Amino acid sequence: MNVKSLLVLGAVGTFSALSLGVASAMDTHLVIKPELKLDPAMVELGKKLYFDPRLSASGVISCNFCHNLSMGGTDNIPTSVGHKWAQGPINAPTVLNAQHQVAQFWDGRAKDLAEQAKGPIENPMEMASTHALAIETIASIPAYRAEFKSVFGDDTVNIDRVADAIAEFEKTLVTPGDRFDQYLMGNKKALTAQELKGYELFKEIGCQSCHTGPRFGGENYTKMGMVEPYPTSNPKLGRFEETGKEEDKMVFKTPILRNIELTYPYFHDGAVWSLPEAVRIMAKHSIGMTLTKEQTADIVAFLKTLTGPQPKVELPILPPSTEMTPTPTPFE
Amino acid sequence: MNVKSLLVLGAVGTFSALSLGVASAMDTHLVIKPELKLDPAMVELGKKLYFDPRLSASGVISCNFCHNLSMGGTDNIPTSVGHKWAQGPINAPTVLNAQHQVAQFWDGRAKDLAEQAKGPIENPMEMASTHALAIETIASIPAYRAEFKSVFGDDTVNIDRVADAIAEFEKTLVTPGDRFDQYLMGNKKALTAQELKGYELFKEIGCQSCHTGPRFGGENYTKMGMVEPYPTSNPKLGRFEETGKEEDKMVFKTPILRNIELTYPYFHDGAVWSLPEAVRIMAKHSIGMTLTKEQTADIVAFLKTLTGPQPKVELPILPPSTEMTPTPTPFE
Repeated sequence: MNVKSLLVLGAVGTFSALSLGVASAMDTHLVIKPELKLDPAMVELGKKLYFDPRLSASGVISCNFCHNLSMGGTDNIPTSVGHKWAQGPINAPTVLNAQHQVAQFWDGRAKDLAEQAKGPIENPMEMASTHALAIETIASIPAYRAEFKSVFGDDTVNIDRVADAIAEFEKTLVTPGDRFDQYLMGNKKALTAQELKGYELFKEIGCQSCHTGPRFGGENYTKMGMVEPYPTSNPKLGRFEETGKEEDKMVFKTPILRNIELTYPYFHDGAVWSLPEAVRIMAKHSIGMTLTKEQTADIVAFLKTLTGPQPKVELPILPPSTEMTPTPTPFE
Repeated sequence: MNVKSLLVLGAVGTFSALSLGVASAMDTHLVIKPELKLDPAMVELGKKLYFDPRLSASGVISCNFCHNLSMGGTDNIPTSVGHKWAQGPINAPTVLNAQHQVAQFWDGRAKDLAEQAKGPIENPMEMASTHALAIETIASIPAYRAEFKSVFGDDTVNIDRVADAIAEFEKTLVTPGDRFDQYLMGNKKALTAQELKGYELFKEIGCQSCHTGPRFGGENYTKMGMVEPYPTSNPKLGRFEETGKEEDKMVFKTPILRNIELTYPYFHDGAVWSLPEAVRIMAKHSIGMTLTKEQTADIVAFLKTLTGPQPKVELPILPPSTEMTPTPTPFE
C-alpha cells in the first residue's frame, strides 16, 4: 500500500490508516488456499458417493440433500429434513472449506471429514441406513467396484473407503479468491471503504478472537452467549454432550464465516435469517456490546466480502443399480 | 451394408439378414436428435429454477429431487417422496427426451413441458407450495429478477415465465448418440449380433407398435394389460381420470424406452425392478406371448443400447435469498 492510497483511505474512513496498513500486512496468513495433493480418481469417486442417495435407506437422501452445493453447501433451513421427514436437531453446517477445522459437527464429535461422513449414513434421523446396507448397495454395482479397484488397488467396498472418498471430494470444496482475499493478496481496490471499516471493527471489538484463521471459524470451541445467555428453544448443549463437563454447556465449535452470506439461517439453532440481526445478536450476547445500525452494516458489508467463487461441480452420472442391489425402502 | 457384412450377420444370427438390411435402412427416422434453437440465457435460468428447492414449501424439494439428472432423470424408487414424506401416487417418468411427446404425465393431463412444470409446484403431495408463493419467493431475489429481465425483456416473475424457463432447460436434456443410434447412422459395428437379434424381435412381436418414434414411446396411449389384465395394487386408472371414458381405464401414455436401463423401477406403479422381468411382463400382458429366456435376454440386450450419453450438467449456483424472501416452512 503506497502513501497516496493510505491518504485516500484515511480520508474516506474513520479508522486509522496506519493501523489498517499494519493489519493488512499481518493478515496474509488468513488467505484461504485450495487443497493440493488430492487424488483425482478418488475425488471423482467421492463426488459420486456424495451425490448418491442410495447411501440412504429411502434412496432419496444424499449428502448433497443437506449440504447442497447449489446453496453454499447447506440446506438453508433452520434444521435439516431427514428420513421420513424427521426434523434434524441442529443447523446443517456448510461443507465449504470444512477441512482443517479443529473437528467436525457443532459439538466436535468427529475428528475429521471422513469420520463425519460416516455419521449421517446410519443416523436414523438422517439417511437412516446402516453401514452394512450402504456397503452392500455400493458393492452390488460393478461400475462402483471398478472405481474402488482403480482408487484403492482392489475392489473391496468398506465404510472407511466410502468415507475417505467422500472426504477427498469434500477437500476440493474450498472457495479461494473472494474479495477479502484479493485484498489481502495486494489488490487494495478489492474492498470498499465501508468493507474495510467493517473489517477493522470486526477485529477491534473482538469477533476475530473466536472467528479466527483463514476460515474465520472452525478453529476452536466457544460458548454461545458468553456474556449474556442466548435464548433458544433448541435443546442441544454442544460440547457438554461429548465431555459431560458443566463448563461445556452451550459451547459449540465456532462456525465458519467464509460464505456466511449464503449459509443462512444462522447459529446452531438456525433461528436467525438476517445477517445484520445475527451480527447484532453475537455482539450483544458474546461480546456484551450494542452495535449501532451503522456499525452493524459495516460488519455485514465486510462479511459479504467473504463470499467466494463457488466450486464448479459437474453433476456426476451415477452407475445404475443391478438385480443384486438392495432396493430402497422409502415407505417401510 | 455390403454383401459381406450381410453374410456375416446372417451366419451369426437366426434372423433374416435381408429383413435386417431393409429394417436398418428404413429406421433412420428413429434417430434421436438434440433440440436446436434454444435460448441459452433462458436455459441457464431454467436450470437454476429446476434445481431450486425454494419452489417448494419446505425449501428442500426441487424438480431434480424426483427427476434426478444423476439417475436417468428419475428418482429410481417406485413412487416419489413428496412434501412431509407424502407417498406419490405414480412412478416419476424420466425428464430425459421428454419433449415432443403426445402429452406429459402418465395420464397426459399436461399438454407440454411448461404445463407439466407448473403441476408439482402446487401439488400438496409434491412441492406443496402455491404458484403465488413460488413467484413471491423468486421475485424477492434481485439476481433472479435480473435474469428474468435479460431473458424476457422485463423483470416480471410469473408462473408462465418460470415454467417456460424450466421447460427450456428440459429441452436440452436429450441423449443423442447412444449405440442404437450410432448403428442407425451407419456404424454397423455399434451393435452386437445379440443386440440386433433383440431389435428384430422387438419389432417382430409388436413392441414397436406402441413404443414407436425416436423415443420408443411417448407418442400414444395404450392399455396396460391389453391382452391379459396387469395385476397391480396401484389405484391409478390413467387416461380414464382425464376423460371419464370406460375404455380409458388402465390406459397410460406409452413410456419412453430411451435410457430404460437407468429408469427403473418400471411401469406406472414402479413395481418391477428387473428389466428382464419387465420385458416378460409386457410380452405376456400386452402382447399375449410367453418369451423364452433367450428371447428376453435378446430384447434386454437391445434395450440397453438405448442408454445414451447423459447430459453434462454443471450444478447451478443459486442466488441467495434476501430479507424479503418468504422463509421456507419444512415443519409447519
